[in-house]
Amino acid sequence: MINERLLFGGDYNPEQWPEEVWSDDVRLMKQAGVNSVTLGVFSWAKLEPRPGAREFGWLDRLMDLMHENGIGVVLATPTASPPPWMGKLHPETLPRDEDGRTVWWGSRQQFSHSSLVYRRYAAAITEDLAARYGSHPALTMWHINNEYCTHDWGDEAARAFRDWLRAKYTSTEALNEAWGTAFWSQRYDSWEEILPPRRAQYMKNPAQVLDFKRFTSDALLECYLAERDIVVRHTPHIPVTTNFMPFWTGQDAWKWSGHEDIVSVDVYPDPKDPWAGQYNAMIGDMTRSQAGGPWMVMEQAAGPVNWRGVNHPKPPGLNRLFSLQSVARGADAICYFQWRQSRQGSEKYHSGMVSHAGEHGRTFREVARLGADLARLAPEVAGAHSPSQVAILHDWESWWAGQQDGRPSVHVEYPEVVRAWHHALWEEGVATDFARPEGALGAYAVVVVPHLYLLTDAAIDNLLAYVRDGGTLVCGFHTGAADEDDRVRPGGMDARLRELFGIRTVQEWWPLDAGEAVECEGFRGTLWSEELEAAADAEVLVRYKGGELDGLPAVLRRGRAQYVSTLPEPEALRELLAGVTREAGVRPPLSGLPAGVEAVRRGAFVFLLNHGRDPVTVDVPGSHDDLLSGASIEGSLVLGRYGVAVLRP
Amino acid sequence: MINERLLFGGDYNPEQWPEEVWSDDVRLMKQAGVNSVTLGVFSWAKLEPRPGAREFGWLDRLMDLMHENGIGVVLATPTASPPPWMGKLHPETLPRDEDGRTVWWGSRQQFSHSSLVYRRYAAAITEDLAARYGSHPALTMWHINNEYCTHDWGDEAARAFRDWLRAKYTSTEALNEAWGTAFWSQRYDSWEEILPPRRAQYMKNPAQVLDFKRFTSDALLECYLAERDIVVRHTPHIPVTTNFMPFWTGQDAWKWSGHEDIVSVDVYPDPKDPWAGQYNAMIGDMTRSQAGGPWMVMEQAAGPVNWRGVNHPKPPGLNRLFSLQSVARGADAICYFQWRQSRQGSEKYHSGMVSHAGEHGRTFREVARLGADLARLAPEVAGAHSPSQVAILHDWESWWAGQQDGRPSVHVEYPEVVRAWHHALWEEGVATDFARPEGALGAYAVVVVPHLYLLTDAAIDNLLAYVRDGGTLVCGFHTGAADEDDRVRPGGMDARLRELFGIRTVQEWWPLDAGEAVECEGFRGTLWSEELEAAADAEVLVRYKGGELDGLPAVLRRGRAQYVSTLPEPEALRELLAGVTREAGVRPPLSGLPAGVEAVRRGAFVFLLNHGRDPVTVDVPGSHDDLLSGASIEGSLVLGRYGVAVLRP
Amino acid sequence: MINERLLFGGDYNPEQWPEEVWSDDVRLMKQAGVNSVTLGVFSWAKLEPRPGAREFGWLDRLMDLMHENGIGVVLATPTASPPPWMGKLHPETLPRDEDGRTVWWGSRQQFSHSSLVYRRYAAAITEDLAARYGSHPALTMWHINNEYCTHDWGDEAARAFRDWLRAKYTSTEALNEAWGTAFWSQRYDSWEEILPPRRAQYMKNPAQVLDFKRFTSDALLECYLAERDIVVRHTPHIPVTTNFMPFWTGQDAWKWSGHEDIVSVDVYPDPKDPWAGQYNAMIGDMTRSQAGGPWMVMEQAAGPVNWRGVNHPKPPGLNRLFSLQSVARGADAICYFQWRQSRQGSEKYHSGMVSHAGEHGRTFREVARLGADLARLAPEVAGAHSPSQVAILHDWESWWAGQQDGRPSVHVEYPEVVRAWHHALWEEGVATDFARPEGALGAYAVVVVPHLYLLTDAAIDNLLAYVRDGGTLVCGFHTGAADEDDRVRPGGMDARLRELFGIRTVQEWWPLDAGEAVECEGFRGTLWSEELEAAADAEVLVRYKGGELDGLPAVLRRGRAQYVSTLPEPEALRELLAGVTREAGVRPPLSGLPAGVEAVRRGAFVFLLNHGRDPVTVDVPGSHDDLLSGASIEGSLVLGRYGVAVLRP
Repeated sequence: MINERLLFGGDYNPEQWPEEVWSDDVRLMKQAGVNSVTLGVFSWAKLEPRPGAREFGWLDRLMDLMHENGIGVVLATPTASPPPWMGKLHPETLPRDEDGRTVWWGSRQQFSHSSLVYRRYAAAITEDLAARYGSHPALTMWHINNEYCTHDWGDEAARAFRDWLRAKYTSTEALNEAWGTAFWSQRYDSWEEILPPRRAQYMKNPAQVLDFKRFTSDALLECYLAERDIVVRHTPHIPVTTNFMPFWTGQDAWKWSGHEDIVSVDVYPDPKDPWAGQYNAMIGDMTRSQAGGPWMVMEQAAGPVNWRGVNHPKPPGLNRLFSLQSVARGADAICYFQWRQSRQGSEKYHSGMVSHAGEHGRTFREVARLGADLARLAPEVAGAHSPSQVAILHDWESWWAGQQDGRPSVHVEYPEVVRAWHHALWEEGVATDFARPEGALGAYAVVVVPHLYLLTDAAIDNLLAYVRDGGTLVCGFHTGAADEDDRVRPGGMDARLRELFGIRTVQEWWPLDAGEAVECEGFRGTLWSEELEAAADAEVLVRYKGGELDGLPAVLRRGRAQYVSTLPEPEALRELLAGVTREAGVRPPLSGLPAGVEAVRRGAFVFLLNHGRDPVTVDVPGSHDDLLSGASIEGSLVLGRYGVAVLRP
Repeated sequence: MINERLLFGGDYNPEQWPEEVWSDDVRLMKQAGVNSVTLGVFSWAKLEPRPGAREFGWLDRLMDLMHENGIGVVLATPTASPPPWMGKLHPETLPRDEDGRTVWWGSRQQFSHSSLVYRRYAAAITEDLAARYGSHPALTMWHINNEYCTHDWGDEAARAFRDWLRAKYTSTEALNEAWGTAFWSQRYDSWEEILPPRRAQYMKNPAQVLDFKRFTSDALLECYLAERDIVVRHTPHIPVTTNFMPFWTGQDAWKWSGHEDIVSVDVYPDPKDPWAGQYNAMIGDMTRSQAGGPWMVMEQAAGPVNWRGVNHPKPPGLNRLFSLQSVARGADAICYFQWRQSRQGSEKYHSGMVSHAGEHGRTFREVARLGADLARLAPEVAGAHSPSQVAILHDWESWWAGQQDGRPSVHVEYPEVVRAWHHALWEEGVATDFARPEGALGAYAVVVVPHLYLLTDAAIDNLLAYVRDGGTLVCGFHTGAADEDDRVRPGGMDARLRELFGIRTVQEWWPLDAGEAVECEGFRGTLWSEELEAAADAEVLVRYKGGELDGLPAVLRRGRAQYVSTLPEPEALRELLAGVTREAGVRPPLSGLPAGVEAVRRGAFVFLLNHGRDPVTVDVPGSHDDLLSGASIEGSLVLGRYGVAVLRP
Repeated sequence: MINERLLFGGDYNPEQWPEEVWSDDVRLMKQAGVNSVTLGVFSWAKLEPRPGAREFGWLDRLMDLMHENGIGVVLATPTASPPPWMGKLHPETLPRDEDGRTVWWGSRQQFSHSSLVYRRYAAAITEDLAARYGSHPALTMWHINNEYCTHDWGDEAARAFRDWLRAKYTSTEALNEAWGTAFWSQRYDSWEEILPPRRAQYMKNPAQVLDFKRFTSDALLECYLAERDIVVRHTPHIPVTTNFMPFWTGQDAWKWSGHEDIVSVDVYPDPKDPWAGQYNAMIGDMTRSQAGGPWMVMEQAAGPVNWRGVNHPKPPGLNRLFSLQSVARGADAICYFQWRQSRQGSEKYHSGMVSHAGEHGRTFREVARLGADLARLAPEVAGAHSPSQVAILHDWESWWAGQQDGRPSVHVEYPEVVRAWHHALWEEGVATDFARPEGALGAYAVVVVPHLYLLTDAAIDNLLAYVRDGGTLVCGFHTGAADEDDRVRPGGMDARLRELFGIRTVQEWWPLDAGEAVECEGFRGTLWSEELEAAADAEVLVRYKGGELDGLPAVLRRGRAQYVSTLPEPEALRELLAGVTREAGVRPPLSGLPAGVEAVRRGAFVFLLNHGRDPVTVDVPGSHDDLLSGASIEGSLVLGRYGVAVLRP
C-alpha cells in the first residue's frame, strides 16, 4: 500500500495510562514488530477540555516518541466522541432517536450529524490538528472520525433532511410522486411538513424510510468530507481513510470508498462461529472490492471482544490464521483495536495486543509471532493483486429497501442471503469480488446476484448488457422487484429481466415460515419460494415437488441467465454454483484440497490456510518455497492446526 | 341487504394511479362482475390539500364514471388519515402513547379521538362530502372513517376522560369507591388529578384501565356518531356503516353496531392456519350476530396480506371457499381491500383483486370466477336468514378486565379461549350465534360461556332466568369472578352462580404453566384448573386425576347448568359440547359429513363447503339442485379441493 | 425478638373495607392467634387527602380497636405511595426513567428519592404520626416506608448525584481518574456536566453506572434515615424497621441493616419451584446474617401472589412448612401481605390470610393452625440463636459491577450463582451464614465465595488474613478481577489472590454459551471456564478434558485456599463442598436424613422439615419431645407430607 510495507499495529490510546507506561509500550511494540499506531481516536476531551481550549503537549510527546522509535502514526480526528461540555452547552448537538428520546453523553458518538454547531467544533479541532501535525515526520495517514454510525431523528436532522430532499426532488410534487403519498393521505403540501420517519401509529412510508437512510449515509459522508478536505488542504501527500464497520447498514460504502485514499475496515469474526473463516473472507473480499486494490484491516481483536452476549477468546493460532487470510485477500495492513487492553471503561473486556495477562501472556506471544510473519511477507506481498473471475453483486440501497415494514417475510435477512452465496463459492475455492449493480462487470466470467430486491434501470441495463456480451448470470429470489423509488415494477419483476430469465408471469411470492423447507427436484429450498409461469423458451432446470407449487419451476434459465427462486440448502447451492462456474471456465488456484483448507492467490503467491483444528496433508504439484517457514515444498506439505503456508513457485 | 343483491367489489383508491388507468379499471371491474366500490377512504390530503381547501374534481369524475358503468359507490369519509398539515399546524391533534411519546404523521391514523380541532376538521370535510354527493346516483352507502382504533394518553384525552368519568360517576367519591383507590394511596381529591393510565412505577389501577378502555371505545364512537349524524341529515335514505376489525379489542362492537344501518367487518384469515376456515366462520357468526341479519365483508384479501411476519398467498380456490362460507353465514357483500394492488406505499405487498401479475394472473381469474358465482346466488340468497340454536356469550368489557396486570395467568388469551369453544361447535357442525351476556337468550336451546371473568348483575340475572326458563347453560373457567367495577365477588365467584352450578367453595384458581396439562377423568385440561368444593346437590361429571387437585371436581353440574373448570383439549371439548347440544335437541343441517366438510343453512339452502385439499364424496339424502353448477344432485355429490355446492331442495 | 414472643399477623389495610368489617376482622384475628398487624403502609392519601390536611380519626379508632383486643400494631409511615395531588402540584417529585419518561401516579412508589419537596412532605406526615401515636399502647414497632426501590434519572436526581459525587471524590480530577473517563473522550471538566447514566448511543461508563447504583441506594437510605430519626426522637424505646425485598438489587442491605433495630424481609418463594424451600432458606439465612440475630418475615403469601406470569397457589401444608422453616432459621415474626385479600385494586389476586373464600376456606384454616403452632413454639424458641460454621460471602457492589454492559457473558446472573452454592450446602445439610467480604470471618470453619467479581483491597486483606489464621477458603470463578472503582486488577485477578490459590497467569476467561457444558475430570462445568496457568506450588485437583482448555487446571488449591474456575453441575458442586466442609470439621445437626428432609438447629432444638410430598421415616437417635405435636420421639419419627417436628432433647 504505502512503502511496500505491511502495516502492523493498532489503536493506541495512551491517555488511559500514566506516561511511565509509554516507554514500556514502545519496548513491547518493537518486540512485536509494530510499525504503525493510530492515535487520537477518542481524545477530543483531552485535546479540548473546554470549548476552544487546546492541550497538545501530551500528543506532541507521543508523536515524537513514535517517530524516535520508527513507528508511523495514523492520526485520527477525534470527532467521533465529543466531550461532555458540548452536549451541556449545546443540547441541539445531541441526537434524538425515532421516539424523540435524547441520546445523552456518557458513552460515545453522541452527536447529530446534522448539527451545524457540532460540525463547526469538529472542523476547528481538525484544522488545528492538521496544522500542528501535518509536517510531523511520524504522520503516515489520516483517520477521520471512527465507525460513522450515528442516526438522528430530531429537529436538526429534520431540517437537513428537508434540504437533502429539496436538492433531490426540486418540487414537492416530485417527492409526492416518488414516495407514493397519494396512498394513506400522506401528501405533503410544503417542505416544512416533512419529517424524518418518526414513531407513528402504523407502518411508515417505505420510500420515505429509504430516502432517510440515503440521507443519513450522505449526512455522515458530508461530515467525513468536511474533515477530509481540511486535512488534505494541509497535507495533500498524506493518504486519508475512515474505518468502515463490516457489512454495516448505515453507510453506502460503495459511495464512500471513492472519497478515501485507502479503504479500511473493522472486522470481528466470532471465534465460536464454525464459519468465522468464511465471514472474514467475505469482509476481506468486500473491502478489497471497495478499495479496488490493497486495503487495511484497521481493527480486529487479538482475543475476545466485549459486545457479544458471550465473548469467546481466540484459541491458539486463530488470530494468525485470520490475519494471514486477510493478507491473502489483499490486505496491506493488519491492525487491532487496541494496543494495550484497558483496565477501565466500557471496553476493558475487549482484548488488546497486550492483554491483561501482559507480555508473558499467550496473546502477546502470538501477536509477536505474527509481527515476525508479516515482516517476512512484506517485501514480496505488499501491494500485490488478488484476482477474481466471479463477482457477487451487492447494493446498500436494495438492502435498505428490502428491510421495510410490510414486506412479504421478516425472515429474509439480506446479509445472511449474501453470506450464503459467498459461502457456497468460498467452500468451492472460487475467489470472488463484490461489485455494485451499476458497475463494470465485463472482466468477470460469472456474475451472481444473491438477492437484489431493488434494481435501478441502469443496473438492469447493465445486467442485460453483461449477458448480451457473453457473461454468465445467476440470480437469486425476489430480485428486480422494485425500482429506485421502491415502486414495484409492473408484473412484480422487471419485464426485461423476466424475459432474460424466461419467466412469463410472477403469480405470487411464497415466503416460507421459519424453519420451513420446500422440496425441489434434488434438493430442499429454504426461506422463500415463488409461483412462476415459465416462458415458452425457458429451460426449467429444477421443479418444485409437492406442496402448493408442485411441478412449477424452481430454477430456470434462458441461455446464460439463470434464476433461482428459492434459497437452496448450503450443499445444493454450492453444487449449483460449482456447476455454473466450472461451465464458465472458472478455476480455483489449487484443486483437490482437503476439507477446511483454503487456497488464495495473491500476486505470484498462493496462500494455503488450514481452517481445521487437525493437521492435514496438502498435495501441491511441483516445487515451491514457503515464504513463512522458508522450507522447500516438494509435491506436498503438512499444515498444522490453523496452519498457513505461502507458496512461491 | 340492499336491492336483493350481493355486493361484490372493494376499496378503490384510484388517486394512486394516473387517470388513464381508470378506464382500464372499469373494463376489468365489469369483466369480474364488480358492482360496488368504496371510494375516499384515504383521500383527505387529496380532497383538502391545505386547511380549508377543497379538491372535488377528481372525485366528481370518478363518481360519474362509476355511475355510467353501473357500479355503486360506498363513499367513505376520509377522516381516518388526516393530512400532514394538520399535525404540523395543530400538534395537539397528534396522539401521545402511554409513555408520552408523540405519534407523528407519516403513516396513518395519527389523530387523537379527543381533539376538538381534529373533530372540527373531520366534521367540515364530512359536511362538504355529504352536501356534494348526497344526491349523486352512484352513492349507495356511507362508510365512516376506517377501522377505528386510535388510542391517546395525552392531555387532550385526559381532559375528555375526566369529562367521561364525571358523567359516569358524578362525584369523585363514587369514582374512588369504584376504582378501589383506598388501596395504594390512590385516592383522588379532585377531578383534575385524574389521568389516563400512563407509564407508572408498577401495576396500574385495573378499574382505571378498564374505564379508560370503555372511554376510548366511547370516544371513538362519538367521532363516528358525529360524522354519521351529518351524513344522515343529508341523506336519511342512505345506509351508514363503519368497518370493524375482526374480534378487535378497541371497540365494544355490541355497543357500536346499534348505531349502524349495516354492520361490516374486515376479515383476514391466515391461509397457512390449518383452521383458517373456522376463524372465518367465527368472525362471520360474530358479525352476523352484531348485525342481527345480513352483514358485509367490507375487506378481505384476494391473496396475501402484508402485515404478518410471513405473508402467505392463498392457494387456488381458497379465496372462493372463504367468500362463499361468508355468504353461507349471512354476508350480503363480499368486498376486498383493495381493487388494484398498489405499486407504492406501505401496502404494496398486500394483494389486490387485480394483483401485480395483472389481468392474466391467477388471482384476477379467480376473482372473476367468484363474481360470476355471486351473481348466480344473489337472486336466491340475498337477504336470507342463517339460523342458529346455540349462542356463545361474548363481552368486550370482560375481555378488557381480564387483560389486567396482576391477574392469575398471563397465558389466558381471551380470544383464544372463545375460539376454542367456537371451534368445538364448528367442527361438530353446530351453527352458532354470538350474544351479549345481557341480551335476549330465550330463543336458544343452548348457551355457552367460554370465559367471562366479569359479569354484571344484569348478566347474572339473565343467565339465571335463562336456565330457570328451561335453557341449557355450559360455562367455562373463571367466569363470574368480578362485577362491573372489576370488584371480585365475595367467594371469588358470584354466590348465585355458585349455587346454579353446585359449587360450594372456590378455594383457589390453579392456572397452568405454558404447555402444562392437567389430567382429568377421560381427558386432559389445559391453561387453567380450579380447586372447587362441590355442593351437596351437585353432580360431579369429571374429576381431576393426580396432582394437587386429585379427586376434586373438574366438571360439575346442577340440572341444566354445567361448569367446566379447565379448558379441555380440543377433541374433549368437542365431545363435551356435542353431548350437551345433542341432549338439548340441537341438530346440524346434515349429518355424517366427511371430515373437513362444512354444511351451513341459509334460508332454504344448504351450503356445502369442502375445507380439504382432496376431493370428497358427500351423501345428501334426496334430490337437490346445486345453485352454483346448476347440476342436479341425487343422493350424493363430489366436492373438489376447496369445492362448494349450494343445495336447493 | 420482643417479649419472647413470635409475632404472627400481617399487613392490615382496613381502609379498603367498611368499618363494619373491622369487628369481623378482629374476631378472625383472635381465632387465628394473630398478635400483630401492620397499619398505614398505603394510607397517605387517606391521612392527608389534600396538602397539609390530616385525617387521623379512622386510624385512632383502629389503634384503639387493636389495643382493646390485645393485638400489637407495627405502624408504617405511609411515604412509599404519595397521593395523586403531590405529582399534580409538584411534578418534580415524579421520577424520570433512563429514557427521560415521566413515571406518573396511578400505581404506587411514584416519588423521586432526591426530591426535596417529597422529602419535606414525608417528614411532615411522619412527624405528625409519631407525635399522635408515639404513646399509644398498641404501638410496638415502626415500619418506615415500604420496599424502598425507586430509581430516578431526572434532574432532581442529577443534582443529588452530583452532590454525592462531590462528597465522595472532592475533585473532578479524582472522579475522572476513578471512572476512567480518559477513554471514549468522557472527561468531565466541571461537576455540572455530570448526569445520571441516561439513554446513550452505546455502552455507558461502567464506573458511572456503579456509582449511580451506590448513590441510589444511599439516596433511599437518606430518605429512610430522615424518617427514622423523627420517630426515634418521639419514641426512643420503640424499635424501627423497614422491609427489604429478598436478594434485591436496589439496596445495599449490609449498609442499611446497621440502621435498623430489627431487620425484616418480604419473601415469596414460587410454590411451583421444586427448590422453593432452598430459596426460602437462603433468604432466611441472608436476613438473619444482616440482623445478626432474630429477624422478621414481614411479608409472605398465604397462597398465590399476583405478579408472576402464572401465579400458583400453595398446596396444603406448604405455607406452614415455609413459615416454620423461617422460624428454624431465626425468624421471630411470621407475617403476611395481607390480612384480608382485596376485592379491588392491583393486588386483589394476591392472596390474604383470609382469602376470597373466607373463613371457611382452606387458606384461613391453615393460617389458624399455624397460629396455634407458633403460640406453642414461642415460649421456647423466641430469641434463640441459629448457629452456622460456614459463611457465604456476598456483596451488593460486586453484584452491581458484574452487571455492566460489555462484560464477558450476559449469562452470568449473580443471584443464580450464589443460589447454586447455597443450594449445594443446603442439600448437604450444612447451615450457612452470609457475610460481607470485609466482615469478621474468624468464627467460621469454612468461607465460600461463589463469585465476587469486585473485591476491595480491604476485602482481599481480609481473605488473606482469614486463610493465614487457619481458615478454609473456597472461591468461585471470576473473583477478584476488579477493584472498588471497577478497575481491572493487573493480570486480570489480584496478584495476592493468584498467589493464594496458586495461579500464575489468567490467560483468558472462556464464558460458555447458554446450555453449553465443559467437561472436567469427574464432572461437567457450566456457565464459565478459565484458561489458567498454575503456579509451581499449586495442587491441581481437577483438569479440563477436551476442548480448547484440555489439560488445563479447572480446580486448584494451595494449602487451604481453593479456586473453582467454572460452575460445577449441582451434584458436583455439592460433593466438592461436602468434601471441603467435612475436612474442615463441619457437621450437620443430624446425619443420614432421607432425601428432602432438612434439619436445622435453633437454640436447643432441632427442626425437622419434610420438603417432600410423601411421608418419610426419620431416624433420630435418643429420646426427644416434639414441641409441635407434644409427642415423645424414641429413635425415629414419621413426618407427613410437608410435615414438621421440633425436637427437644
